[in-house]
Amino acid sequence: MKLVRFGEPGREKPGIVASDGTVRDLSGLIPDIDADALSSGFAKLRGLDPASLPEAPAGARLGCPVARVGHFIAVGLNYADHAAEAGQPIPAEPILFSKAPSCIVGPNDDVIIPKGSSKTDWEIEIAIVIGRRASYVAANEALDHVAGYTICNDVSEREFQLERAGQWMKGKGCPTFGPLGPWLVTPDEIPDVQNLAMWLDVNGERMQTGNTNTMIFDCAKIVSYCSHFMTLEPGDVITTGTPPGVGLGMKPPRYLKPGDVMTLGIERLGEQRQQVKAFAG
Amino acid sequence: MKLVRFGEPGREKPGIVASDGTVRDLSGLIPDIDADALSSGFAKLRGLDPASLPEAPAGARLGCPVARVGHFIAVGLNYADHAAEAGQPIPAEPILFSKAPSCIVGPNDDVIIPKGSSKTDWEIEIAIVIGRRASYVAANEALDHVAGYTICNDVSEREFQLERAGQWMKGKGCPTFGPLGPWLVTPDEIPDVQNLAMWLDVNGERMQTGNTNTMIFDCAKIVSYCSHFMTLEPGDVITTGTPPGVGLGMKPPRYLKPGDVMTLGIERLGEQRQQVKAFAG
Repeated sequence: MKLVRFGEPGREKPGIVASDGTVRDLSGLIPDIDADALSSGFAKLRGLDPASLPEAPAGARLGCPVARVGHFIAVGLNYADHAAEAGQPIPAEPILFSKAPSCIVGPNDDVIIPKGSSKTDWEIEIAIVIGRRASYVAANEALDHVAGYTICNDVSEREFQLERAGQWMKGKGCPTFGPLGPWLVTPDEIPDVQNLAMWLDVNGERMQTGNTNTMIFDCAKIVSYCSHFMTLEPGDVITTGTPPGVGLGMKPPRYLKPGDVMTLGIERLGEQRQQVKAFAG
Repeated sequence: MKLVRFGEPGREKPGIVASDGTVRDLSGLIPDIDADALSSGFAKLRGLDPASLPEAPAGARLGCPVARVGHFIAVGLNYADHAAEAGQPIPAEPILFSKAPSCIVGPNDDVIIPKGSSKTDWEIEIAIVIGRRASYVAANEALDHVAGYTICNDVSEREFQLERAGQWMKGKGCPTFGPLGPWLVTPDEIPDVQNLAMWLDVNGERMQTGNTNTMIFDCAKIVSYCSHFMTLEPGDVITTGTPPGVGLGMKPPRYLKPGDVMTLGIERLGEQRQQVKAFAG
């Protein structure tokens, strides 16, 4: 299943993508794509023919495909060649930080350059959505706790992240820094989550090209690892790190400016598109 | 007002402490101490005589006084003498990290030493509960966004925090590492939040003695500062750092072991008591 949430910010309804690509309205069947739906394994939707459901309004905005994300965890430097471009050693174990849940927006919403920022950067990533509570789970059972996958643009302000007194989260949770979506794709639609091509363009120019097959720590290892340091709950999201090609790694570094357009995609998970705007407040 | 949540974990009801110290049941008036209640400024409770409400069952367990905490933010090294005992320089600006919301427990619940831990430590802190959305707020308006204050024991695993590949959150969000409570105390009950005595004992022996008047960055500055890096939402909690006397700072360091009892308190905010237990899973 490809699950979505459509409608205006804060008023999204649950939906599902039919085989013809249209979005169908699930709100008659489930109240939302929330922790309850995730932890049920979407039991109410099994055997459903999406074509039997009403169509969502044409051109409806897509929101984050998960309602009320709890903990928004991120893995740093999880692609060997990205660690190299960032001038960092390959980590011996996963580096974890967090993004403020309030930074989450829809996959095609605007990205706002924060007040005082000169180093706003992009990061295409595959994000794991937790479906079932996970505490001290082994790697070979970890994926049983996953409800699905989506795309995350782990937007980052490099000065806030790296030059403002320790701990990366300052540069990771600014408003609009967490585009998620377009779809929550259930694992049955993904033959091998460790073999998915991914890319990110800025203004049509290819910046990042990668594949989940070069992740240092794979999705199973990441879920297992996190679960040894904290309990993962349904609705938690773990974004898993980015391949090379971020602005920070260029010589000289290159950062986003108002008017830029980011387009990004992952095989089987769809595409995002964000316009970059200046802070105006 | 001193607001509480009482009852079994996951089934807490909202309550209020009457002038005779008894807990009274608020569930006939508000569904919970949640983002809605916080952002209303507890409008439905103004002018209420708690003595007119039914009493909670005697000896009822207290839960975290805020339902569904969103982002659980923490400030590091915010007392000059604690920075010194931790062997760290005094920070030029607040150090921010996060605790997994799933680590939150009631003020008197057990604290479990995580699997594989040998360095579990205590930290008495005053925590700020956000009541109104805050984005780019100035320090002189920041406290208008605060619903109240409570006690946090920012329980920390020092090896996970400091010796496991960067970023502190690995040692801060283990299950039971976030006792909050007993009360959410509204600001009108606190004449000066920057002059509150605080203490923590282990097995009756005084370990930490401090006062919020030695914080490097005060509560107003912290709320303002955080709001420049992320939007703060009603129900977010910011715990503000600990005074000297943690186990890490002792020579030799001293850590918690099963059977230890932590008691801790802050002037006007009440007391907590936790029994330390071994992981048994």
